[in-house]
Amino acid sequence: MYYPHQIQDLIIEFSKFPGIGPKTAERFVFYLFKKSSRDLEKFSQLIKNLEQVKICSICGFFSEKEICSTCADHQRDHLVICVVAEPQDLMAIEKTGEYQGVYHLLGGLIKVSQGVGPEQLRIKDLVQRVQESKGKIREIILALNPDLEGETTSLYLVNLLKPYRLKISRLGRGLPMGSDLEYVDEITLSDALKNRKPI
Amino acid sequence: MYYPHQIQDLIIEFSKFPGIGPKTAERFVFYLFKKSSRDLEKFSQLIKNLEQVKICSICGFFSEKEICSTCADHQRDHLVICVVAEPQDLMAIEKTGEYQGVYHLLGGLIKVSQGVGPEQLRIKDLVQRVQESKGKIREIILALNPDLEGETTSLYLVNLLKPYRLKISRLGRGLPMGSDLEYVDEITLSDALKNRKPI
Repeated sequence: MYYPHQIQDLIIEFSKFPGIGPKTAERFVFYLFKKSSRDLEKFSQLIKNLEQVKICSICGFFSEKEICSTCADHQRDHLVICVVAEPQDLMAIEKTGEYQGVYHLLGGLIKVSQGVGPEQLRIKDLVQRVQESKGKIREIILALNPDLEGETTSLYLVNLLKPYRLKISRLGRGLPMGSDLEYVDEITLSDALKNRKPI
Repeated sequence: MYYPHQIQDLIIEFSKFPGIGPKTAERFVFYLFKKSSRDLEKFSQLIKNLEQVKICSICGFFSEKEICSTCADHQRDHLVICVVAEPQDLMAIEKTGEYQGVYHLLGGLIKVSQGVGPEQLRIKDLVQRVQESKGKIREIILALNPDLEGETTSLYLVNLLKPYRLKISRLGRGLPMGSDLEYVDEITLSDALKNRKPI
């Protein structure tokens, strides 16, 4: 006794999703199977609709037009660029409401072990953006994860951008809100000591 | 800055999948977004194809025809029915290669707290199957999970099937293979003692 091929094929596709094994993929298919024809058609259409989404030719974020709403927004400071790895990171920064500059999405981080080098990321586009601004850009904020891959990518970018003599910063390090000193790792605590502030 | 509605709508749909939160849903959509147009079309079609899958009118398992291959198989013993909750359970039993009878899929278990009563399950169909066999069915094996919902459903079925005077059994209880006595729960150990076998 086997699953009909329609079920089996879909299980295989869902198994390729990030972090999803064959058991969860099975559950996804059975979940969909219980839906009505109309809901299936709708879901199938939503997936097809992804094709309509463009990538902003400036920052690399999703966009419905050639240029995204942020890059087209004259209220924002176009001389400060915040470099992020993934769209989720950009959204996280937007949610703080603190940032008024523009963005540049790399589309990932350098992961030598997985064969992701600088040429697979939107790094060339960033350098070009800096070049084309002819010295007008005031600051590049590297908002990359504070881990091995984030640090590697930051280092690579710093070296690449050095000749343009602009301010390059990275996000502050220290204790996250709600943390417990006892359980904070040594690097974070040492960062917090270095970055202490007078009150 | 927001995600385009095509992205947002799909995140919402994936968030409804079993065990999936908004963060994982986001990752699913970005994973799909990186696929080619052709792959998206193919995936979208696979979802639509689910509509073609039928439910076997006898056992309730997936089928490409009116009656599934197991129910149509004359080599199998049609006088022994194994009752399971979900398609995955049926597949698990098939994989043992030990069972030669037929199946009956309930489509779930009685979950009073979630409003799933006997009428939402294929219980009436099971009773009808027993009735129509006119006393020929030798045994009903209740292969339901050994937890609160499985026990509740088993009890309900036993009461319902009692008048037909057939053999009703449930799967054996005891130590699972590879378990460690020290960590086995008391109920399992007590079951294992009761079900001990001479060697």
